[in-house]
Amino acid sequence: MNIHVNNILSDLQKDDIHAYLLTQFTNVEYLSGYKPTSFAFCFIKENPLIYVSSMDMEIAKNNSSIEIKEYKSFSDIIDDLKGEGIKKLAIEPTLPFSTYEKFKNDFEISSKTYIDKQRMIKTSGEIKKIEKATNIAQKSFLQLDILNNRNSEKEIAFDLVRYMIENGASKESFDTIVASGPSSSLPHAVPQDKKLDQPILIDWGCIYEGYCSDNTRTIVYTEKQQEIWDIVAEAHDKAINAIKLGIKCCEVDKVARDIITEYGYGDKFIHSTGHSLGLDIHESPGFSTKDNTIIDKGMVITVEPGIYLEGEFGVRLEDTVAISNRGRIIGNLPLKL
Amino acid sequence: MNIHVNNILSDLQKDDIHAYLLTQFTNVEYLSGYKPTSFAFCFIKENPLIYVSSMDMEIAKNNSSIEIKEYKSFSDIIDDLKGEGIKKLAIEPTLPFSTYEKFKNDFEISSKTYIDKQRMIKTSGEIKKIEKATNIAQKSFLQLDILNNRNSEKEIAFDLVRYMIENGASKESFDTIVASGPSSSLPHAVPQDKKLDQPILIDWGCIYEGYCSDNTRTIVYTEKQQEIWDIVAEAHDKAINAIKLGIKCCEVDKVARDIITEYGYGDKFIHSTGHSLGLDIHESPGFSTKDNTIIDKGMVITVEPGIYLEGEFGVRLEDTVAISNRGRIIGNLPLKL
Repeated sequence: MNIHVNNILSDLQKDDIHAYLLTQFTNVEYLSGYKPTSFAFCFIKENPLIYVSSMDMEIAKNNSSIEIKEYKSFSDIIDDLKGEGIKKLAIEPTLPFSTYEKFKNDFEISSKTYIDKQRMIKTSGEIKKIEKATNIAQKSFLQLDILNNRNSEKEIAFDLVRYMIENGASKESFDTIVASGPSSSLPHAVPQDKKLDQPILIDWGCIYEGYCSDNTRTIVYTEKQQEIWDIVAEAHDKAINAIKLGIKCCEVDKVARDIITEYGYGDKFIHSTGHSLGLDIHESPGFSTKDNTIIDKGMVITVEPGIYLEGEFGVRLEDTVAISNRGRIIGNLPLKL
Repeated sequence: MNIHVNNILSDLQKDDIHAYLLTQFTNVEYLSGYKPTSFAFCFIKENPLIYVSSMDMEIAKNNSSIEIKEYKSFSDIIDDLKGEGIKKLAIEPTLPFSTYEKFKNDFEISSKTYIDKQRMIKTSGEIKKIEKATNIAQKSFLQLDILNNRNSEKEIAFDLVRYMIENGASKESFDTIVASGPSSSLPHAVPQDKKLDQPILIDWGCIYEGYCSDNTRTIVYTEKQQEIWDIVAEAHDKAINAIKLGIKCCEVDKVARDIITEYGYGDKFIHSTGHSLGLDIHESPGFSTKDNTIIDKGMVITVEPGIYLEGEFGVRLEDTVAISNRGRIIGNLPLKL
């Protein structure tokens, strides 16, 4: 049995819970190696078992390290669990309410973050995949030759995805953002059919062997844009330097936020300083004002301060940081292009 | 106030519930025109209101027909609702359990499918967008010149997405499937870096103004492949002809399933006959063995029987059907290429 499954079994034993139900695709993938394409009900218990949709049986058979059984109905699952004497059932926090309702009458249910806590701490193998994804994404970005590129936002986004796939990624890790001119003030702008305006903000990443990368660069042109860029770069660098074991995630957010606030743009920094990534592009913990998680070895978290001036432009700079004793930036793409 | 919001207000009044919480991005988009990029809490009540993440405020301001307010904390929302005298709160079935937990102590909560029931019935405007998406996707498919194409599965998938975007789609509606040879027996195969084998199964679609398309074609070469193709085509055609108002969705599934079973391949048809689509690629109702929904005007449902011979090959044929008095196939791409 793999270490992740064993850790969860220990968690269950400690809390005197008999089984843990997981349905989120990346949670099932993390524990078993099999990523569902339709739906799956994975039960971590004395004899772990995944109920697999009939259309996924072939792929599950070839990839799952956990025993599988074809899903027939909820009542079959409930009968199986009761037959094993299972009374107390833990569920993942993301479980849809309608699924919870199917189990609530037959089991004592509690929501547990065992899986999230484990996924917070990446193994060296996981970090290598994030590093490889980042390297592919950054190499592909340079192929764009963005300073001399005359294509539209949409074409550039498309070229970037193509380069990433040609360079070995399976796909983009989220919808690529190429936002120029006033659209750059939208943190999640959608690339348009328009020639590039100034500044140019690009937020992109890819997936390599299931693991995500995430970076942002902003290319500025005017004096005002450069002034904002300098503030964001200072926040970016100092937040990364502040990362160390034992402090709280919110303290890193505070470093970035305080700098931007001192320059008078506190209310224009409209999101948190960063989020973890791994099999998902957004994971816990994050560098946010309310996250009290203690920073630990093996965490991989982005640092991405930004300033957004509605109707004018926005600047965001983002790197992904692997944490050992201090924070180490993954990849080697300069901030200034 | 728009008709969708009004309909939900009537549902609430009928059930004596004071507010309906929606968080699924496409549900919020359906009701307000604003599609969240981060998170949002939309409350349909006497004075409908969406709590919007700070990073989405600009885009929500420009797109939402429902009043918006910047999200600060769950406790603020709870205070606001209590201040309005709201005691009974309906939630959408897909609400994550952890969100439900934040509200459960202060409100009497019930899960309601008001939104799903409305989204089942498309307006003519919605159907036109699905039709446009389908036309773009089918035109793009023909550009592939698949019978003479010598690229790899991955390259073909990529070209197809590029054509769809060039032809006006915003993006693909799901990960494009190009599966050839034995991989075609996986209903959700991932395109590989390999030259095309035989048969070639392509399942693809795009998004136009938020609305999805979905089609599948399989190109067969050997006698055995043709034999299976003929059975699937018969199931496809007869299921579509069976669609009429007033019968149950499961009856359409039965038509397709019975044909495939008569030929001895019942256990190789490992998924349901079809699913609705709209703002999401998978919506309710579906042509499945257990779906007792009565077929009604305005539903848009795929018909996609398939036979999967593990280790050999698979065949699936899929069209999207708009239902008025009978079923009408959207698009005009022949089954046989």
